[in-house]
Amino acid sequence: MLEQLKKDVYKANMLLPQYGLAPFTWGNASGIDRETGIVVIKPSGVPYPDLSPEMMVCVNLDGEVVEGELRPSSDTPTHIELYKAFSAVGGVVHTHSKHAVAFAQAGRDLPAYGTTHADFAYGNVPCTPALTDEEIEGDYEKNTGIVIVRCFTEKQLDYNAIPAALVRNHGPFTWGKNPAKAAENSAVLEIIAEMAINTELLAGGATRRVGKELLKKHYLRKHGANAYYGQKG
Amino acid sequence: MLEQLKKDVYKANMLLPQYGLAPFTWGNASGIDRETGIVVIKPSGVPYPDLSPEMMVCVNLDGEVVEGELRPSSDTPTHIELYKAFSAVGGVVHTHSKHAVAFAQAGRDLPAYGTTHADFAYGNVPCTPALTDEEIEGDYEKNTGIVIVRCFTEKQLDYNAIPAALVRNHGPFTWGKNPAKAAENSAVLEIIAEMAINTELLAGGATRRVGKELLKKHYLRKHGANAYYGQKG
Amino acid sequence: MLEQLKKDVYKANMLLPQYGLAPFTWGNASGIDRETGIVVIKPSGVPYPDLSPEMMVCVNLDGEVVEGELRPSSDTPTHIELYKAFSAVGGVVHTHSKHAVAFAQAGRDLPAYGTTHADFAYGNVPCTPALTDEEIEGDYEKNTGIVIVRCFTEKQLDYNAIPAALVRNHGPFTWGKNPAKAAENSAVLEIIAEMAINTELLAGGATRRVGKELLKKHYLRKHGANAYYGQKG
Amino acid sequence: MLEQLKKDVYKANMLLPQYGLAPFTWGNASGIDRETGIVVIKPSGVPYPDLSPEMMVCVNLDGEVVEGELRPSSDTPTHIELYKAFSAVGGVVHTHSKHAVAFAQAGRDLPAYGTTHADFAYGNVPCTPALTDEEIEGDYEKNTGIVIVRCFTEKQLDYNAIPAALVRNHGPFTWGKNPAKAAENSAVLEIIAEMAINTELLAGGATRRVGKELLKKHYLRKHGANAYYGQKG
Repeated sequence: MLEQLKKDVYKANMLLPQYGLAPFTWGNASGIDRETGIVVIKPSGVPYPDLSPEMMVCVNLDGEVVEGELRPSSDTPTHIELYKAFSAVGGVVHTHSKHAVAFAQAGRDLPAYGTTHADFAYGNVPCTPALTDEEIEGDYEKNTGIVIVRCFTEKQLDYNAIPAALVRNHGPFTWGKNPAKAAENSAVLEIIAEMAINTELLAGGATRRVGKELLKKHYLRKHGANAYYGQKG
Repeated sequence: MLEQLKKDVYKANMLLPQYGLAPFTWGNASGIDRETGIVVIKPSGVPYPDLSPEMMVCVNLDGEVVEGELRPSSDTPTHIELYKAFSAVGGVVHTHSKHAVAFAQAGRDLPAYGTTHADFAYGNVPCTPALTDEEIEGDYEKNTGIVIVRCFTEKQLDYNAIPAALVRNHGPFTWGKNPAKAAENSAVLEIIAEMAINTELLAGGATRRVGKELLKKHYLRKHGANAYYGQKG
Repeated sequence: MLEQLKKDVYKANMLLPQYGLAPFTWGNASGIDRETGIVVIKPSGVPYPDLSPEMMVCVNLDGEVVEGELRPSSDTPTHIELYKAFSAVGGVVHTHSKHAVAFAQAGRDLPAYGTTHADFAYGNVPCTPALTDEEIEGDYEKNTGIVIVRCFTEKQLDYNAIPAALVRNHGPFTWGKNPAKAAENSAVLEIIAEMAINTELLAGGATRRVGKELLKKHYLRKHGANAYYGQKG
Repeated sequence: MLEQLKKDVYKANMLLPQYGLAPFTWGNASGIDRETGIVVIKPSGVPYPDLSPEMMVCVNLDGEVVEGELRPSSDTPTHIELYKAFSAVGGVVHTHSKHAVAFAQAGRDLPAYGTTHADFAYGNVPCTPALTDEEIEGDYEKNTGIVIVRCFTEKQLDYNAIPAALVRNHGPFTWGKNPAKAAENSAVLEIIAEMAINTELLAGGATRRVGKELLKKHYLRKHGANAYYGQKG
């Protein structure tokens, strides 16, 4: 069942340690088959070198395992909430990458300081509010997804244009049209988070954000109908 | 004698340079056989590539070498004090990993800023008080262990829930149920120390600690009877 | 056509990931044949491992492709402006290297703090003013080159002595007598940018610039008629 | 002539890129044969992968090449001044390692913050005063050595106990009983410099130096007649 998607999800998971984003078993990638609504995701707590495509776990959008002998990632309910709310998304990734986590722990949005950011996202990457005690004690992982979606709704952000969120005191979730793109977005997020920390060290905490025009120019150079970066087709 | 434990201790020592925690001969791992009270530890000052399981040194809890031709690590008396006081511990590791040492040198507890920390330890990792001149001039390495144990006692900390300490102006000691887990804990400690430094750079020194509920939630997701992270059994 | 230059440009592009300057497809190197005025440059958006010398694209100084089946780098018009204004330059490189980008995002010149800098450039590396909205909405990449050239003209800087510029909110461009030297200059710029950030952390933001005599001594040890670093000829 | 020393100096030079201390051709190691007063040193400007033991250059203490077809390192006169003044030294190394350079550029002594430092040096690593314009315009490299020696004399420092100096706005020189030990000292200096920067970030610039007793204890654990770290003999 969904053999190609299992391979894609497996490969996306293996990108995480390759990109330096996920020591030990930290971090997980998933993909969704939109026709059947089946999400394929990493099994929980299995070291990356031990993974294989066959070990990927299939769950439906109610979180029930429909294929696979291993427990799915404990973060599966978060992935599901994102798939339910963000209908164009084909892959989701969660990591504890160091500099993105620093922003999440500091409780701060990642400001768009330059074109490296603008090539990736059309504006600041938001940091969610903290979950309430009730949200934590309840269905915690599901509520983590709900907090991300609510943050995008309340701030009127477009998840297609900003493919990442920082969960307060926790870390980043990213998404994309497929699992590989979601993993790449996690890598880019980590790079721009590190750049932003160094930018603030140099500029004394002042906000030196990229201007609106430059943000737009670089985002649209790479994204959308009039993108002209890369090869045609 | 204790061939399996020697292999385990050897492997844990080899993890230290692999994790990037111990340049040159800095850092040492040990394990204990609780039945006999024999501690197996790295020989002093031998480069990691030159080590073999047979070179591990066996000492009793009085610090006397009971097998092995090499001198045990000069930090052996510290390990012994930890084994004597922390009865559920099966492995101890000492490193000079860079960011954990920075907290030790700054004389500061490592604050629990997020879930990466909470997955590892149920609260701040304490920094001990400085040893007194008498403690340094006396049985220094033994007193280093005593200072760690006293710190946990005085602060009423549970060594099972917080598997690490920072010795003031010195560096980290970590422990676990076996030598491999103690080594993993050293690696995790280093990662969260680096994250904490970057967090403070972003949040202007303000304390933005993880809330009690989130700390509890993540710690208990991975530890104890109701843990649900990873595979069963 | 220009087979040797294609190989040189290919090799310079491959140096960028090797030096750790260009994740994904970020960064591009070019070279010019001054006799024909043909610029050879990386194709846009192609991952480095997929490149070959034959894939390099040839464009004239009007930006028209004269050989090659792929689109040239979207930054080609910037390279062309630099070749037109800086007549002794044989190679140009653009990267998003992390610490150089931090200076560009902070909107600050990179100060000459020591001999590592002086060995490379005879003075601060300038950060350009931000492009105006009109410059961004117009021929953006061409205007990026014009802004660099104007910055050097207005500040009366010698592009031979300072082989790099930081484009505000964007990142570094470097140049040299050939593509390999331009790539090396990108690597050196990144190193001195990282050193400068750490210098400022230590010296509390005070300017502790290298003195004029030491700047001159080190620059002229390596550059010009009386250089005595390295082997003769 | 001095075949073994050439091999030792070659190996010490090759340690510099291996330790991550010397990109490109930056950094050089030398050794001295005290019987003949011949210094063996890296040739100037040759990339490390191209070096061989036979390419090492022999100079006397007047700086004259007595064997070898290549120019010696342009820093040779600095090495010679150190060998002349520090009679127990058998090897000298110069690098532009990043964090040590940051201290040199900030014009600050590297403070002894902990036992990692104390294991290496018995006190702060001094930063020299800046060379005067006359010293720079004159015999610059020789004067660099003289400034280091004068700094040790004026501050009444023991070069055996503090095997390193930071030259203001320039970078580190280290020494040891042989070339390999001098190279190791460069690596340790870089590590403790990075630790010190992170320590200061955490402790708000306050001086949290290691106490005298702990400094002494750790230094004498590894150095001198009563050292008990490592194996006997």
